[in-house]
Amino acid sequence: MIAELSTHPEMQPVHEALALGLARVRQRFDAQLVSADQPINELTEHVGRYRGKMLRPVLTLVCGLAAKVSAGGKVTAAELDGMWNQDHIIAAAVCEMVHMATLVHDDILDEADVRRGVRTINALKGNEAAVMLGDYLIAHAYDLANASARPTVSRVVSQAAVAVCAGELMQLSQRGNIGLTEAEYFRIVGGKTGALIAAACKLGAMASDAAEPVVDAMAKYGDLLGTAFQIQDDILDLTGDEGTVGKSVRKDVEKGKMTLPLIHVLRESGDDGQVARVLKRAATREWNHEDDSALGAALREHGSIEYAKQTAAGLVDRAKKGLDAVALSPVKQLMMVMADAVIDRTF
Amino acid sequence: MIAELSTHPEMQPVHEALALGLARVRQRFDAQLVSADQPINELTEHVGRYRGKMLRPVLTLVCGLAAKVSAGGKVTAAELDGMWNQDHIIAAAVCEMVHMATLVHDDILDEADVRRGVRTINALKGNEAAVMLGDYLIAHAYDLANASARPTVSRVVSQAAVAVCAGELMQLSQRGNIGLTEAEYFRIVGGKTGALIAAACKLGAMASDAAEPVVDAMAKYGDLLGTAFQIQDDILDLTGDEGTVGKSVRKDVEKGKMTLPLIHVLRESGDDGQVARVLKRAATREWNHEDDSALGAALREHGSIEYAKQTAAGLVDRAKKGLDAVALSPVKQLMMVMADAVIDRTF
Repeated sequence: MIAELSTHPEMQPVHEALALGLARVRQRFDAQLVSADQPINELTEHVGRYRGKMLRPVLTLVCGLAAKVSAGGKVTAAELDGMWNQDHIIAAAVCEMVHMATLVHDDILDEADVRRGVRTINALKGNEAAVMLGDYLIAHAYDLANASARPTVSRVVSQAAVAVCAGELMQLSQRGNIGLTEAEYFRIVGGKTGALIAAACKLGAMASDAAEPVVDAMAKYGDLLGTAFQIQDDILDLTGDEGTVGKSVRKDVEKGKMTLPLIHVLRESGDDGQVARVLKRAATREWNHEDDSALGAALREHGSIEYAKQTAAGLVDRAKKGLDAVALSPVKQLMMVMADAVIDRTF
Repeated sequence: MIAELSTHPEMQPVHEALALGLARVRQRFDAQLVSADQPINELTEHVGRYRGKMLRPVLTLVCGLAAKVSAGGKVTAAELDGMWNQDHIIAAAVCEMVHMATLVHDDILDEADVRRGVRTINALKGNEAAVMLGDYLIAHAYDLANASARPTVSRVVSQAAVAVCAGELMQLSQRGNIGLTEAEYFRIVGGKTGALIAAACKLGAMASDAAEPVVDAMAKYGDLLGTAFQIQDDILDLTGDEGTVGKSVRKDVEKGKMTLPLIHVLRESGDDGQVARVLKRAATREWNHEDDSALGAALREHGSIEYAKQTAAGLVDRAKKGLDAVALSPVKQLMMVMADAVIDRTF
């Protein structure tokens, strides 16, 4: 992902360093999960194939660098690579492991058969194996966190995990509630998607022994990016092409999840109109082609996709502006580019 | 549970102290889970109703005392209660929380509708809520562990959790494999049941700053007790009365789980005989009343229940003898009584 983001020559050393750093993260991740029991290795190796953009480890590493590189200084890839200590690598691997666990458990929740073109564990081995494998990954994530010399890794991750699960539980309890407010939506999303990405950024800065304002700025950057990321997911669920997005679309509507464009279109069209009826029907799974067209027309009429896009763009803008405490460098530039990429993606 | 174990007057102060300590554990447990979101509180309050014998917290507290009380000394309940520090209470609550999480996830695995006379979360709110609630409890368990001044609480718990999940995953992968050996059985059970009980005991001793041989002895005691506990569960699944046991019996056979009595009866009767055919059929869920009778007769003929009972009794005996490093006191006496109780129970 990162290599595609920018070909600016100044950033080249950062890209090279990241490739080195990520290789170490993958190594640590795999080493943590090696088991004496072959059936368990088969499961964890299978999950390794879910590995995608590695957004969280990338953020840990990039935030770790950004907190260390001084303003205006020119640095080589080797120098940058030398800036990461064991805690950067551990924290990055831990965040990825927790994320993988949530993917395995999400696939049970979504009854998904395929992820990134690979059959899901629940489809291959049943829900029981998927529940237990997710738990196993979580246990290993803390075990790895505890290998860090700082108790903060485990602490930051456990707090983030509480927020992620609370967000998911709130979302579940609000399913089919078309009266969900925008404020409630942002609280849910801040938990389920923002918290772990914020933790990844925060831990990167902490492993660099950054000053508190920098740590806080990185955490806020991650929180805003995560929320923008989720809004982009919401948009793609409504506008995306299944082939490009890599998973089924309109899932949110079918599951009665009120996403930002839906909250907007309902607010604009009034809650006793056709949109409300369509959304209520969708949540009871009586959703048909006509409903789909009616919803599409209403989203266009009220500019609800545009509204969601602008909201996400506003968050990305705040994320970038919030980095004032961080010294200007090619690394910081990459953080800016990454922020934009979160909402420019079509997958 | 504990009050019923012994009415010996010497142990009275220990029972009284335990009641005080457990009240503090429950308080800490509940305080950790209080949420600003009412739907989440409803879920965690519901899970509170699964609370049973509190075996793990009791063991943490008892092992904590046993490591502190000196030989022959007479102590009051208040003195005993004063021996517990924050780490005893935290560790006890953490072990209970991890245990609760496994119950919530186990109920999904078992498609169970009722636990301790209370409807399960998966039955009430669906599998999605149950997966996420279990994850939420695990996240909180580590968050609470991290409230301890010692990083060891989180460390010991994460290692135990890895072992628990590995045991469960191995058991899943071996389902329907009637060739499972006794050694493989003991490895699975040592993980899925022994590891967390051993951690509960170990953390009790560690919170008392016990010397390493004492910590190790307590961990071994927990490991042996946990394994004996599981064998007793296996026996009750074959011999128990549904009303007394509080859950459906013969589940293990139906699920293709090879338990100790089944491994024994198969070994004694030869693996091409009727028992093998019955067990193979059971694992494919074609189980009928005749099979049940045939299995019952074979278990009696070969003394397989008796064999499992004796094996469990042998483990309990080793657990008690292993406490030589622990000073003789009414607390140690209670540990002896508890060990016996694990296999004397009919529920």
